[in-house]
Amino acid sequence: MDYGEESLKQHKQLGGKISLRLKDDLNTRDKLSLYYTPGVAAVSSFVASHPKKTRDYTWLNNCIAVVSDGSAVLGLGNIGPYGALPVMEGKAMLFKHFADIDAVPIILNVHSADEIVAAVCAIAPSFGGINLEDIAAPICFEVEERLKNALDIPVMHDDQHGTAIVVLAGLINATKLLGKDLSRCRIVLIGAGAAGVAIAKLIHQYAGSEIIAVDTKGVLSTNRSDLNEQKRYLASLNRITHSGNGIMPLRKAFKNTDIVIGVSQAGMILPEDICTMNKEPVVLAMANPTPEIMPDIAKKAGAAIVATGRSDFPNQVNNALAFPGIFRGALDNGVRNITDKHKIKAAEAIAQLVDKPEADCIIPSVLDPRLTEVVARTIT
Amino acid sequence: MDYGEESLKQHKQLGGKISLRLKDDLNTRDKLSLYYTPGVAAVSSFVASHPKKTRDYTWLNNCIAVVSDGSAVLGLGNIGPYGALPVMEGKAMLFKHFADIDAVPIILNVHSADEIVAAVCAIAPSFGGINLEDIAAPICFEVEERLKNALDIPVMHDDQHGTAIVVLAGLINATKLLGKDLSRCRIVLIGAGAAGVAIAKLIHQYAGSEIIAVDTKGVLSTNRSDLNEQKRYLASLNRITHSGNGIMPLRKAFKNTDIVIGVSQAGMILPEDICTMNKEPVVLAMANPTPEIMPDIAKKAGAAIVATGRSDFPNQVNNALAFPGIFRGALDNGVRNITDKHKIKAAEAIAQLVDKPEADCIIPSVLDPRLTEVVARTIT
Repeated sequence: MDYGEESLKQHKQLGGKISLRLKDDLNTRDKLSLYYTPGVAAVSSFVASHPKKTRDYTWLNNCIAVVSDGSAVLGLGNIGPYGALPVMEGKAMLFKHFADIDAVPIILNVHSADEIVAAVCAIAPSFGGINLEDIAAPICFEVEERLKNALDIPVMHDDQHGTAIVVLAGLINATKLLGKDLSRCRIVLIGAGAAGVAIAKLIHQYAGSEIIAVDTKGVLSTNRSDLNEQKRYLASLNRITHSGNGIMPLRKAFKNTDIVIGVSQAGMILPEDICTMNKEPVVLAMANPTPEIMPDIAKKAGAAIVATGRSDFPNQVNNALAFPGIFRGALDNGVRNITDKHKIKAAEAIAQLVDKPEADCIIPSVLDPRLTEVVARTIT
Repeated sequence: MDYGEESLKQHKQLGGKISLRLKDDLNTRDKLSLYYTPGVAAVSSFVASHPKKTRDYTWLNNCIAVVSDGSAVLGLGNIGPYGALPVMEGKAMLFKHFADIDAVPIILNVHSADEIVAAVCAIAPSFGGINLEDIAAPICFEVEERLKNALDIPVMHDDQHGTAIVVLAGLINATKLLGKDLSRCRIVLIGAGAAGVAIAKLIHQYAGSEIIAVDTKGVLSTNRSDLNEQKRYLASLNRITHSGNGIMPLRKAFKNTDIVIGVSQAGMILPEDICTMNKEPVVLAMANPTPEIMPDIAKKAGAAIVATGRSDFPNQVNNALAFPGIFRGALDNGVRNITDKHKIKAAEAIAQLVDKPEADCIIPSVLDPRLTEVVARTIT
């Protein structure tokens, strides 16, 4: 199927993908008086005096915002808020379908960290949680950090943590299958943006593995002077030292590594790179829509396990495995702060849904009906 | 029925009054690929290049925000955003029920004009229109004016204009029934807040009647030095001159007037005030929940026609007669600026729904099924 053509047709025909639903009808004067004036005055007075109880009397307990400024949409880049809206509506569909959460797309036409934080803080009482989405690095790091500190509701940048959780779940099963110890694995990470930084942080937290992170210029190392705060952190995760100021090129980074994680773009992993890796290498090539290397080529070059971001290949690394359950759990259990411990437990829970990992099955299907509940149970 | 008690029970049981609905199901990989990645990329790319077409491919064309900072909620006053939320959800119900519009409650925890304008401008791309609600005067005037200028979507502060439209509709039928000429009527207006200012402006635009506006200190007149911009405008609508700096008290304002409009509080109109008015006086006592004077007392004192804001008396002045159709029309007809002409045409359309005005029927029922359509047709 030509998904693009069909998708345009379908979106236009439906006029978007979401709408509002009333929990009761409103066809009598009594109903009007119950749900609006004069009855609603009693509810408003009550929750005004007991703000924390607002959740019990409104949709707050089940309602989150999916917030984007459109600065890093899918693989399309900085296409602005309108370009982001169809994706945010899609995300709202996923939240509703997988976790019965009412998610409202909020697209912003401001783009600095200060303005994004101010706007989200201003509207925050309207929601029980904030899912940040498709906001470019490095602003996304500051925005998430400041919002987590400022607000008393859960805030998560899904491009970072949703991806990181599912990658960790995949690596847990991949290393289990291959009999490797993740803490002793050497990992090449291609791409030092939102997802890359979060993946590295979570793996480091979980296993302390050596991670050789690479940006467009080459391997990140502590003797590079052109790195922002997050990249300096990534540079601290490898033991590579250079002589002089030379930057090690990507091609040399693969040597004697066990795992390569691509969150970059098509073509960044070559068959000859895989040949220089350790025995039974694991390849997570998650660039969308075209992976860093296609699975058949990676396997021919010796990859033991390959995962991509695509639904038409085995082992899809899909955020939708994580975020519905994460927010379902946070809302249901009143969790205000989604921590690294939560993310690790969620990754383990996702990994455990695969009874017997195989090369083509290290990650459960996004359609696994147990997913949301087992993930939600870890957010306590 | 004790609406308050029952309302609390019902709100808690339902967990709020609204939720999200998906326009299609999402139970296959194909549907996921159509509505989310990879299919949605084609839609995002397309609308990013043609931002005005975003409406055709998303819910924008049918989606508005109901925005409040909770500074003037119902008759409850400044009870804050959480207190406002049950009312905004109720308003969302009314929009859906009466006009099939998807309205999202946005409550703000900022309260200055600058901050409210900044927050609404930041999130504006998310919506096809902005219904401002329950924001206190005088900030509401500045907020609405600035947002109308800044945004290319319709913006309306309903407390002002929804009320004004229905009041004008009622006065059109009341004067028709009594054989009076509205332009020659002298009107007392008690309350110089959001609704009062908008009512005066619309009546003045429509008929040029003399309006004697009154605030908590007494009659507004051009020789008062304590008036803000809106009150100075109201003061210009009467021909009253004082000797010296004395302020004429409310009690004296009723003499030889034809109509009294109360948007203030219980007890502000006394039977003896009505006795000093001209023959066949018209009383619109719209304080909620208790009118400025109760209808039976007003009638006993000589009122020919009485209207209130309450659903349990005849002639309910209810914003819900106007706002669903106003926004339905603005969205369907691509109207960016709701003007005084629109409001007057809407008032006339509402008035015309009453075939033969009678003392107890100058305003149609909010349940009249023709309402939304006839009002929407005037917004072109």
